[in-house]
Amino acid sequence: MTSQPLIPLSDATLPLFIGVDVGGTSIKVGVVDDRGATLGFTRVSTEPYQPGEQAVARVGVALAAMLEDREIDRTLIRGVGLGSPGTMDIPTGMLLEPPNLYAWHQFPIRDTMQSVLGLPVTFANDGAAAAYGEFWLGAGREDPSIVMLTLGTGVGGGIIHRGRSIDGEHSHGSECGHVIIDSRPDARVCSCGQPGHLEAYASATAVVARTREALQRGRSSTLEHVTSELTALDVAEAAAAGDALALEIVDETADYLAIGIVSVVHTIDPNMVILGGAMNFGGMASAVGRRFLARIQSQFRAKTFPTLAERTKIDFAALGGDAGYLGAAGLARSAHKDP
Amino acid sequence: MTSQPLIPLSDATLPLFIGVDVGGTSIKVGVVDDRGATLGFTRVSTEPYQPGEQAVARVGVALAAMLEDREIDRTLIRGVGLGSPGTMDIPTGMLLEPPNLYAWHQFPIRDTMQSVLGLPVTFANDGAAAAYGEFWLGAGREDPSIVMLTLGTGVGGGIIHRGRSIDGEHSHGSECGHVIIDSRPDARVCSCGQPGHLEAYASATAVVARTREALQRGRSSTLEHVTSELTALDVAEAAAAGDALALEIVDETADYLAIGIVSVVHTIDPNMVILGGAMNFGGMASAVGRRFLARIQSQFRAKTFPTLAERTKIDFAALGGDAGYLGAAGLARSAHKDP
Repeated sequence: MTSQPLIPLSDATLPLFIGVDVGGTSIKVGVVDDRGATLGFTRVSTEPYQPGEQAVARVGVALAAMLEDREIDRTLIRGVGLGSPGTMDIPTGMLLEPPNLYAWHQFPIRDTMQSVLGLPVTFANDGAAAAYGEFWLGAGREDPSIVMLTLGTGVGGGIIHRGRSIDGEHSHGSECGHVIIDSRPDARVCSCGQPGHLEAYASATAVVARTREALQRGRSSTLEHVTSELTALDVAEAAAAGDALALEIVDETADYLAIGIVSVVHTIDPNMVILGGAMNFGGMASAVGRRFLARIQSQFRAKTFPTLAERTKIDFAALGGDAGYLGAAGLARSAHKDP
Repeated sequence: MTSQPLIPLSDATLPLFIGVDVGGTSIKVGVVDDRGATLGFTRVSTEPYQPGEQAVARVGVALAAMLEDREIDRTLIRGVGLGSPGTMDIPTGMLLEPPNLYAWHQFPIRDTMQSVLGLPVTFANDGAAAAYGEFWLGAGREDPSIVMLTLGTGVGGGIIHRGRSIDGEHSHGSECGHVIIDSRPDARVCSCGQPGHLEAYASATAVVARTREALQRGRSSTLEHVTSELTALDVAEAAAAGDALALEIVDETADYLAIGIVSVVHTIDPNMVILGGAMNFGGMASAVGRRFLARIQSQFRAKTFPTLAERTKIDFAALGGDAGYLGAAGLARSAHKDP
């Protein structure tokens, strides 16, 4: 559920905050103290085909049970952070047209949650929440400015600039998956409908599509023998076993990411670029994952200014699937301290 | 010299600030009041082959003469803003290797100016200073967040995000001319040495190079008959006279800019993108300039999210060559008010 150790209330630094991380299949809910330690955790199913109000009601019920179970006094909680996939309008707290939450369009999620939980809710993009988590407690915790890319079904983005999330003036800031890395008219088309975006090249979906196309072009590979639906995990496993096509796909994915990272870094100039999400070819635990990271680093260095080649760090995220709820709680804490 | 009307000290809102804008051929120096009105203006030659200390000394002499001439009491001046081309290290106030200031490498420009003028100096990139000028007093004055591209010999950048300049953690923030718009290995090479950057396609230098190459490929154009060194102004004039190649160059330049603008806007999501600099094909005063702007706007709208297509403004800058010294003064004012 969470890989964070749970501390008892007696060990917590007050006040407490709730972090809520809405995903396509489940909603994670954590109670977090002022230093980022987790006191309690629960999750409910998202049910994207049912109205969002029902999910928020389930969050309320599950939270009440968890607070009781973990003996957490509700009056110690100062606020709720809510990270959700977009599109959204942050000032009004509206979900607009989240692509995978089919029954949640035009849903006033912030105010609904505020009234169900009876606490102020700080609303954020899921990419921004995850980035804030890594900034507060994870891979970026020594750095005032970070850029995070979340590599999954899509490519999410979050930018924390000198301690604050760049949400943008129209709730479209930090959309790093949607920088253009290929401006040719026949570039790959992104899930958003536009050609040439980083997401169209470096998401798990894109990795699978690029692999399939190579197989269809007649490239020989052990991946020809995958009988079920091909996944990015299959590509990672084939690469680990030395399959030439799979390794080429890994390297090219790194090259595409480096191009997008250069454009974002030349705009923001952060201390660090953090790569989160499950689409990391095994991450630091695997030789292929380490090769993937090393190639992103070397390609970035080859394409940027000497000072940035020397100083801008690029690394995998540290908090895994916990970054979202921890970061959402952190954003609530930040809003509470500095309204 | 400056197109700002000069006000007398008796009409000024105190305190006063000095704005210094270092360019390749001259250094502009203005005394500006708390509302951005100019009280006095002067300029000295840059002399890029002479040590920077001499230029700073000339600034001191010219400023003293101007203060006397304009009857400005020196004790009313709170600080100096200094905008300069990079590369630079902002925290230490060092110019590192400014490409056209040949004798100014590794020059502690901020501290030198501080001791010559006897006032605190706020040091910034020239792109950031110009952007701050447009944000404070120009085309972006209604907007908390702007991105500015300065189209000249190169493509400069400045981002003001919620009232503050994004300088970056290594003094390389807002380098919007160095986002990658063409990732092919044979992309055009930028002045910085890297391939595919926006500057390599949309600067005056690039416009001339692209035009020359088209002529060399045998394209017929009135520009064949330009006997002196071809300039972007020649291209603008030929376009105004209906030359097909020149119009194509104008349109393609707009298309390249739109690609770069999309990547920066999807990262920052500002209210407005401002196009400054002289490489504007005549700007709003000319039909070709208006066509250039309209094409950037329509190409941007076609390539971005619906909300941003509707709401993100793109327009020419309003302050012309005054943006740099006005913005530098504004940055000094901002540092003084909120240290």
